Amino acid sequence: MNQSFMALEVAEIPQAAARFLDGSQAAVADAAAALRALDPHVMVTVARGSSDHAATYLKYVVELLAGLPVASVGPSIASIYRRPLRLAGAGCIGISQSGRSPDIVEMMAAAGRGGALSIAITNFADAPMAEASAHCLPLMAGTEHSVAATKTFVSSALAGLCLVAEWQQNAGLRAALMTVPDALGQALTLDWEPLAARLVRAQSLYVLGRGPAFAIANEVALKFKETCGLHAESFSAAEVLHGPAAIVQPQFPILALGVEDAALPQLVATAEQLAGQGADVFLTGAAAQGAVTLPSVAGLHPLVAPLVLIAGFYGFVEALARRRGYDPDTPPHLRKVTETV
Amino acid sequence: MNQSFMALEVAEIPQAAARFLDGSQAAVADAAAALRALDPHVMVTVARGSSDHAATYLKYVVELLAGLPVASVGPSIASIYRRPLRLAGAGCIGISQSGRSPDIVEMMAAAGRGGALSIAITNFADAPMAEASAHCLPLMAGTEHSVAATKTFVSSALAGLCLVAEWQQNAGLRAALMTVPDALGQALTLDWEPLAARLVRAQSLYVLGRGPAFAIANEVALKFKETCGLHAESFSAAEVLHGPAAIVQPQFPILALGVEDAALPQLVATAEQLAGQGADVFLTGAAAQGAVTLPSVAGLHPLVAPLVLIAGFYGFVEALARRRGYDPDTPPHLRKVTETV
Repeated sequence: MNQSFMALEVAEIPQAAARFLDGSQAAVADAAAALRALDPHVMVTVARGSSDHAATYLKYVVELLAGLPVASVGPSIASIYRRPLRLAGAGCIGISQSGRSPDIVEMMAAAGRGGALSIAITNFADAPMAEASAHCLPLMAGTEHSVAATKTFVSSALAGLCLVAEWQQNAGLRAALMTVPDALGQALTLDWEPLAARLVRAQSLYVLGRGPAFAIANEVALKFKETCGLHAESFSAAEVLHGPAAIVQPQFPILALGVEDAALPQLVATAEQLAGQGADVFLTGAAAQGAVTLPSVAGLHPLVAPLVLIAGFYGFVEALARRRGYDPDTPPHLRKVTETV
Repeated sequence: MNQSFMALEVAEIPQAAARFLDGSQAAVADAAAALRALDPHVMVTVARGSSDHAATYLKYVVELLAGLPVASVGPSIASIYRRPLRLAGAGCIGISQSGRSPDIVEMMAAAGRGGALSIAITNFADAPMAEASAHCLPLMAGTEHSVAATKTFVSSALAGLCLVAEWQQNAGLRAALMTVPDALGQALTLDWEPLAARLVRAQSLYVLGRGPAFAIANEVALKFKETCGLHAESFSAAEVLHGPAAIVQPQFPILALGVEDAALPQLVATAEQLAGQGADVFLTGAAAQGAVTLPSVAGLHPLVAPLVLIAGFYGFVEALARRRGYDPDTPPHLRKVTETV
């Protein structure tokens, strides 16, 4: 069988990350200097689909490192309700692989008109979103043929992380960024066969995370839908106990995405509680009573670990899609560029 | 059969709303005056579960009426990562039925220490969250016995709407608020039998909304899980086309929550697209090709309509739970007050 585009693009994740780290320094430095000069009182993000999960990851990065609140602005506020937001003094980060969805482009232009410093993260430096923004961090990840974004998700999140590291002049994180390509390569060698065996005939599952790993849980759930036809839904490991746990019956599959950070004990406690309800719980980053631990890359910076985790997952889900009889490159009913208003 | 607490509490929704409107004027005026004096540059919300859906509704209300970005702050930032946010000059609205979850209480206290104007929306004026906040809007909805919040959700969202109406001194909205109890009463008489017949033996469904009705879609999806054991997941009517539509096969049930506002045409277009994929689509507020229109209360203010819609849904879902063999008052694995960190 020929390799899918998705498999080829997952394999390119480490090189794409290295290319961004090497080639983007001037663009990142410019945007970071502009943020330092502005000293924003709030950040806003504009994105959809996988890119919105990268924006959620970036929200945690900004809240944890810069201590600023981050608002996700629904594109409908500009494109449908036509309500200009008061964004003077705010930083606005838009993320879009194609940089072409009209609602995203309009929101970035509206943010600039509203007084925000606008920064586009997109694969293409000449995309309309880049032209509508004051700064652009081009991903240079190469063309992505698969409908399911993989290398561009990792590079988008990495671009946001680099931007905040420079903005905050965080020496520890700058050093950690240099380890990212190697760690991504290690992640692609991991084997999650126990989870694959459980999901090959499943219909539904929950995916849990907390903090930055919650953003990764959102992306994991979307990829299960897009490539495997699985109804996967993501929750924070706290939120799932405020209602959604009601449908967790014996043998309900749950994937809990743990990384080595301050939230890990709470995630483990939730995993154990749901395993106690009889769920089939799979966990990364730790051991939990009644749960199966899946291998992961250890010893990473807590903000790098989520990006390494998703890279390993992408390889896993591409293979699972084929085992479930799906073509991972052509999800039913989807196109690569979705133009919504 | 005796009536469930949930049915009794749904029946109390109109009176609870009227009681808040009558009894809260001084508290609302005080908090609104404080917001006007502050003139915040950003608003943040702190909530979990159903209350977080009320906060999402309030985010749209603030963005549309006050033109300010609204950030949902994950309680983990304060309770787990212990990262103080820079919130000087921000307004912070916390929503919690019980006002007792430790992470929410800690986040409100941290917001105040960070310089924010903190406003608690809770059923109990003497709750710890109220004591940790500068202002409190007590719901006075009466004790809620059912684990599934109903009257307190409507009253929480209504409290937020009243606050913004006063803060922005919006005469049209103030007048519309007076119509809310009657409209809620009308909603409780609607009959959604075609949807009940479709869902009585379903496993999964999608719930769609756009703008303020997207917040209601979140609440609807949670209630399907809590009371009916249904894996319902909510999306904005734009976001669902960016990936999740991949699992929509023939006969997959979809509930699209339309209200008479600027987003309705886009919601109808999405409903028609998914009906074209073969989904069983049910829609409120409009007609769409290939979809079944469910009755709703017409002619409402566009920000009042979502609250009226959810009240009607609550009556529907309580009856559906019993038809599916569930006791709506005692969802499996849940308690009324969930204490997470």
